Amino acid sequence: MRAPVIDNLQYVNWSEEAFLQLREGGVDAIHVTIAYHESFREAVLNVSQWNRWFEQYPHLIMRGATAADVARAMETGRTAVFFGFQNPSPIEDDIGLIEVWHQLGIRFMQLTYNNQSLLATGCYEAEDTGLTRFGKQAVAEMNRVGMVVDMSHSADRSTLEAIDHSTRPIAITHANPDWWHPALRNKSDEVLRALTSNGGMLGFSIYPHHLKDGSACSLQSFCEMVAEAASRYGAENLGIGSDLCQDQPDSVVTWMRNGRWSKELDYGEGSATAAGFPPQPDWFRDNRDMPTLTRGLHGAGFSAQEVAGIMGGNWLRFYERSFGPAA
Amino acid sequence: MRAPVIDNLQYVNWSEEAFLQLREGGVDAIHVTIAYHESFREAVLNVSQWNRWFEQYPHLIMRGATAADVARAMETGRTAVFFGFQNPSPIEDDIGLIEVWHQLGIRFMQLTYNNQSLLATGCYEAEDTGLTRFGKQAVAEMNRVGMVVDMSHSADRSTLEAIDHSTRPIAITHANPDWWHPALRNKSDEVLRALTSNGGMLGFSIYPHHLKDGSACSLQSFCEMVAEAASRYGAENLGIGSDLCQDQPDSVVTWMRNGRWSKELDYGEGSATAAGFPPQPDWFRDNRDMPTLTRGLHGAGFSAQEVAGIMGGNWLRFYERSFGPAA
Repeated sequence: MRAPVIDNLQYVNWSEEAFLQLREGGVDAIHVTIAYHESFREAVLNVSQWNRWFEQYPHLIMRGATAADVARAMETGRTAVFFGFQNPSPIEDDIGLIEVWHQLGIRFMQLTYNNQSLLATGCYEAEDTGLTRFGKQAVAEMNRVGMVVDMSHSADRSTLEAIDHSTRPIAITHANPDWWHPALRNKSDEVLRALTSNGGMLGFSIYPHHLKDGSACSLQSFCEMVAEAASRYGAENLGIGSDLCQDQPDSVVTWMRNGRWSKELDYGEGSATAAGFPPQPDWFRDNRDMPTLTRGLHGAGFSAQEVAGIMGGNWLRFYERSFGPAA
Repeated sequence: MRAPVIDNLQYVNWSEEAFLQLREGGVDAIHVTIAYHESFREAVLNVSQWNRWFEQYPHLIMRGATAADVARAMETGRTAVFFGFQNPSPIEDDIGLIEVWHQLGIRFMQLTYNNQSLLATGCYEAEDTGLTRFGKQAVAEMNRVGMVVDMSHSADRSTLEAIDHSTRPIAITHANPDWWHPALRNKSDEVLRALTSNGGMLGFSIYPHHLKDGSACSLQSFCEMVAEAASRYGAENLGIGSDLCQDQPDSVVTWMRNGRWSKELDYGEGSATAAGFPPQPDWFRDNRDMPTLTRGLHGAGFSAQEVAGIMGGNWLRFYERSFGPAA
């Protein structure tokens, strides 16, 4: 079997056209966001919408629950879709909902989305108090059932404590190193070393706010950053988590940033004068550009095996050891 | 493999002791009630409680999702637990929740519990208008995902229409023929012939209100009724659905009968002077009496193969063809 192509974070405004683009780009699996601020009940509606898409487009997409589903998708020419939360809001205050959500296909959950949550501290808070009492128990429960702890939007101390407290490797599904582009959402060398030193995975983001030179970032600059990261953290711990937010109206980024928690308008990584989604770099506009990314990595001095790993093979191995119950 | 012992309807007040009794009685699989009047959100809590029991008593019980889980339970000396609803209240007004509930393990759903529902008419209503517009679509969706239509508490016309409308065999999981004991909850010969003539299943109830002579019903009388039913409907379409409500406080039967819909006290099959749960017949007090039932059937003139079928083999075959997606 060839190595799969996996993008481990997308939040596209899904449509038949977008599913066709996944196929055209040769994307074998994706991890999609099911909730930002949704309650349990609201997030169920989002799962239900995906169920409907699986029923409507069975020739293009299929539900992803286990690593074996990636192989099944490849054999049948489809894209396996894995679910995740960017915030623990859908578990509300109930640890029992972690297993319920695992049954409904959730395979990644961020402990925070920018703000303090019931579990940990987000990267936009002034002070980071680390994992909460509930947070420690939630990590243990996620470890038990096979739901990956994702710290992409978390603050440093919380992230280091999650790495330490988790008995299984965790992930930062969509962020870049801050030594390449210093942004609140990008991660320190210390965090990335701690993450990858015990098998955790970093997914590189192509969201313009996470890129050096933003929307004008070149493919070469991006791939050179990946090469430097590989030299520091090992190519086998790296993958893609593009954070592709294609075709979304700007009302969605307002929802992502403000949920229902803010009466003032929070611009997050944007600003009052650039409040909407930033334009994608011209080398990654949608899933059809996935081969461009592959070519870029080949041009950055990686071996064919390393490129295959970064483009999806590494996520597949991570899926294999992460999505089932603890041994 | 020996034939399994399956009781296809129990609503015990579960505890470690009750799980041990399942093992002592040699019960390989049960179908348990997850909801009577619960909303979606409330029923999730009931699933979550079972998840906790599966975690706490992994040597006694396991989640049942497919027919193959019955074999797995037998091989590992446990009881497989399958979930069902006695009312469609947990799908609320949303057809998408049928697949969500199938993902959470629900394998049977009654279209009504005594009253008119959004889907069909219950057996306590004065008039029966058959399947509703939503009801017809819900049956088709249950057929698609592999959730069995259960008409135990439904009125006759609704039941006949469900049998007719469903493209897969349906079930009456817990009731008896009304020619043996005329009760509102027992079923007419016409309904039972329509049910079984296309592979549908009848589970015999041992709930005293469904028994001739009530709590004083003899094992012989019960088994003679089963023999007569076998001569009319074919032994292969019959099983057990005992409706065992062991160890429940009477507040539970009040909830079953009244939910939140009634401001007057509805006594259902009981009465003001006998409002609580009736005492079980002395030959079926709890799951340890399952071998007594088997012996009773042997005494009623069945072949060993027929007894094995009625005690669980028939339900297993029904599970095999019912719990997966439509072919």
